[in-house]
Amino acid sequence: MKSVAILGIGQTKIDEHWDMSLREIGGEAAFAAMQDAGMDKVDALFVGNMLSPLIDGQNQLGTYYADWIGLWKQEAVKVEAACASGAAALRAALMAVSAGELDSALVLGVEKMTDKAAHDVTSALATAADADYEVEQGISFVGINALVMRRYMHEFGWKHTDFAPFSINAHANAIHNPFARLHQKINTDQFERSSMIATPINLMDASPIGDGAAAAVIVPAEKVVSMKGKPKITVAGSASATDAIAVHSRNDPLFLSAAYTSSKRAYETANVTPNDIDVFELHDAFSIMSALSLEACGFAERGRGVKLGLDNEISPNGRVPVCTRGGLKARGHPVGATGMYQIVEVVQQLRGECGETQVDGAKTGMAQNIGGSGATIITHILKAE
Amino acid sequence: MKSVAILGIGQTKIDEHWDMSLREIGGEAAFAAMQDAGMDKVDALFVGNMLSPLIDGQNQLGTYYADWIGLWKQEAVKVEAACASGAAALRAALMAVSAGELDSALVLGVEKMTDKAAHDVTSALATAADADYEVEQGISFVGINALVMRRYMHEFGWKHTDFAPFSINAHANAIHNPFARLHQKINTDQFERSSMIATPINLMDASPIGDGAAAAVIVPAEKVVSMKGKPKITVAGSASATDAIAVHSRNDPLFLSAAYTSSKRAYETANVTPNDIDVFELHDAFSIMSALSLEACGFAERGRGVKLGLDNEISPNGRVPVCTRGGLKARGHPVGATGMYQIVEVVQQLRGECGETQVDGAKTGMAQNIGGSGATIITHILKAE
Repeated sequence: MKSVAILGIGQTKIDEHWDMSLREIGGEAAFAAMQDAGMDKVDALFVGNMLSPLIDGQNQLGTYYADWIGLWKQEAVKVEAACASGAAALRAALMAVSAGELDSALVLGVEKMTDKAAHDVTSALATAADADYEVEQGISFVGINALVMRRYMHEFGWKHTDFAPFSINAHANAIHNPFARLHQKINTDQFERSSMIATPINLMDASPIGDGAAAAVIVPAEKVVSMKGKPKITVAGSASATDAIAVHSRNDPLFLSAAYTSSKRAYETANVTPNDIDVFELHDAFSIMSALSLEACGFAERGRGVKLGLDNEISPNGRVPVCTRGGLKARGHPVGATGMYQIVEVVQQLRGECGETQVDGAKTGMAQNIGGSGATIITHILKAE
Repeated sequence: MKSVAILGIGQTKIDEHWDMSLREIGGEAAFAAMQDAGMDKVDALFVGNMLSPLIDGQNQLGTYYADWIGLWKQEAVKVEAACASGAAALRAALMAVSAGELDSALVLGVEKMTDKAAHDVTSALATAADADYEVEQGISFVGINALVMRRYMHEFGWKHTDFAPFSINAHANAIHNPFARLHQKINTDQFERSSMIATPINLMDASPIGDGAAAAVIVPAEKVVSMKGKPKITVAGSASATDAIAVHSRNDPLFLSAAYTSSKRAYETANVTPNDIDVFELHDAFSIMSALSLEACGFAERGRGVKLGLDNEISPNGRVPVCTRGGLKARGHPVGATGMYQIVEVVQQLRGECGETQVDGAKTGMAQNIGGSGATIITHILKAE
């Protein structure tokens, strides 16, 4: 694959944007990325979104945004892979640019989720699970993750409180990210006393939804003449893998085989090992997913993912910094946009733009976006030159 | 772009498949394409679908089908561009194979539409239009097309009956296609007396929805060793373009600028002109769209598209054969699947497998898939070697 560089990034603050339309939320991030890249036109637009048909009554989001942001006549398409839609859009765009078919592309992850009642959003999110064999039984998406977390605690002997460091780290980091949805520190006591959602998952284990958008402009790396003093960021690895869509169909519900496969492929392409990853923006939709991701990607032994949190290895100055801008837990999780927030945040780290939560000397970063309960997992590795 | 060949094709009969699940409808076409290609594994799956979140409560269709058809762990993604979703999935797959990232891909267009009440399907289809500026006014998707057709008749002086040949040709051809939804010939009298839907569009101007799926296996052309006696089909041109999503935002609502742009790009890449196209599977969702497509793609002057029908130029032995397997009008229009039916049908023509509706000596074929009322238009040109 021809080398591709990320020339510009942009994002919209995650919030309940009742005063902004779907158009405006996506447009803000798109315009910011184009401005950051110093471009007023790109060859194509790839949009990652999961819920706009269900929540906003709008399909064909590629063309919808090409129209809105003035990319008239340009190619545009939407890509969907549940909560991994953002990274899926980036990967489709990468392949198109890499094929030489496009000289530039804008990738936009966007979601507007807060215009509907909570039960409608819960139903909409359940479309990420297996409609016939999971949702028909009446289980919600958080319910599926709760079963996985309970099994993990039983199998490996961890208590609920052992997951606290993941949420505490995410909240501590989000305070320094102006685009994050939540800006409150939490402590172990608050983590433990938080409202129960689906036992053992409580409010502090779960990421908040929100309205948001994040975007990046990509170009063939060979065409980048100057980054105006900023480091040049290239995509060194990109891989996507799948698993059974229903958790009960997997050989082992506690092993994210699609994370294992996609991270392995991405490591190989990028010619790195987990030891080389300076920052890892993982998909902490629920605290259990942080543990499982760290294990499947080679940062911890089976059943030992939570130990990384307990040993304080996950903070920006730890051995495996995760969620350095707040993660899904505190930056927020506008589902189809999340994968592109992760990319934007890894770029910020590699550019050294993260202030209080900057990982010193970060040169190689990884972002991993998960659709469903581990069904679609897409891994990108970025490098600063 | 590296040359890509279509190695296998498959399709499911379009019908009201109340006895088949979404899985089974897509699986049938997918397995048929794999069998036709003589492959039991591919590197990745690209699914085109528009309505499954709204009608079937299922998202993440890439992974859903990878799971169902046994492509375990393989990369999979869904692509959506309203009714152009099928061709959009093919184009994404083409770019990935062309980039050298994949050695093979299965492209599946699939839609299950008949499990919901008609008014729910009408609402779901309206998500292809502009939710804020068209649908909010209470107009349906057929209503938008009716306004365009009325304007065309006024502007260029045609009567409703002048559109009859498009539907008559489609119905006549579908009789010989076992996968088509409708198998009745119609005549001008039946065309004129048919029930009104949204004046001037009556039932015989409009394509029927349905449940269906069509699929193709693509590989790098250089890797094809033998076609076992069949002609080798390559993708000679592929292009996608967009227009304003709302019809009222366009400079000229009677000119499909995205058809003009995408066909122009495809002609250039394939190094052909409209004169070289032996068969044209166009997107006759409504009879007016046939006329507009023929005009925008250079087969007729502005306002003269209907003349091609009246002059009997569109039948399989005419100068510009269209809808040779029944088109959307009579083969049926399972929206996200349609673009892949068109590809399958062009391949059948170039292989000489179309029996009664075979275009003699067809060597170059074009398929054009339209999302919304001309908002996203994707053109593919295939050649037989």
